[in-house]
Amino acid sequence: MSKTQITAEPGMPQIIVTREFDAPRDLVFRAYTDPDLLEQWLGPRDLALTVERYDTRDGGRWRYIHTDYEGNSYAFHGVFHGDPSPEAIVQTFEFEGAPGHVKLDTTMLEQRDGKTLVRTVSAFPSVQDRDAMIASGTERGVHHSAERLEELLARQQAR
Amino acid sequence: MSKTQITAEPGMPQIIVTREFDAPRDLVFRAYTDPDLLEQWLGPRDLALTVERYDTRDGGRWRYIHTDYEGNSYAFHGVFHGDPSPEAIVQTFEFEGAPGHVKLDTTMLEQRDGKTLVRTVSAFPSVQDRDAMIASGTERGVHHSAERLEELLARQQAR
Repeated sequence: MSKTQITAEPGMPQIIVTREFDAPRDLVFRAYTDPDLLEQWLGPRDLALTVERYDTRDGGRWRYIHTDYEGNSYAFHGVFHGDPSPEAIVQTFEFEGAPGHVKLDTTMLEQRDGKTLVRTVSAFPSVQDRDAMIASGTERGVHHSAERLEELLARQQAR
Repeated sequence: MSKTQITAEPGMPQIIVTREFDAPRDLVFRAYTDPDLLEQWLGPRDLALTVERYDTRDGGRWRYIHTDYEGNSYAFHGVFHGDPSPEAIVQTFEFEGAPGHVKLDTTMLEQRDGKTLVRTVSAFPSVQDRDAMIASGTERGVHHSAERLEELLARQQAR
């Protein structure tokens, strides 16, 4: 039932993820920028997310940690570029387990008759970097995240 | 006589610039990371460069301003990702005249029998963003910068 599309063309140092959510754009934008909400949906279902820092402004840093049942943790960090807006949330992204491998993510929210199309473009320095990220199992995280976000948005609108 | 190669393949959101310099890697690395040296070579010949900030460490910010003879100024800024090393200088880059359009630059210095091959990969969120940067005349700046850096390195080695 997933409507999430992941596009990773051969030879292109890029991943594009699109998904439509049945919720107004403001609500989706808040889910992307409020750390309390982020912790409820970002990442695979079997990992707990702790947002240590999420300074959503031009030059602001962010850092969060995924922890599994056994206590293993995976930390990520980056920097926001420009003040995040529904038109564009621009941020770098680095897994601390593979330092020096940075991607640049641009997330755009488009309003469509009360629904919201989310489009995230990840730009990589190389196709190898992109493929390494795909091989690390990013796809599962993307699908789980989208499903969990859909559930969160439904809960919020049912209130 | 320029040996600078600029590669911008159709449909690829990327620019790759390579150039060999007749100087040891340490010297080239210093020219890339010491703001006093940077001001002597970076950018087109007819623009003066003022480095306002160049905090070459993980998460450090940089900002510089190009000024032409008429006093028009063009400011750029970004953030370093990871501590810069000769293996990789990773930094974001944003022209303040086109906010929200960010690229991710990775500069790698490779030692080759006393010479240094510099390879810079610029990753863009889209081919449109890349083409807009090319259209803005970036090529002239790249060629001038490489020539000026070659001259600076020659002066330093002649001392």
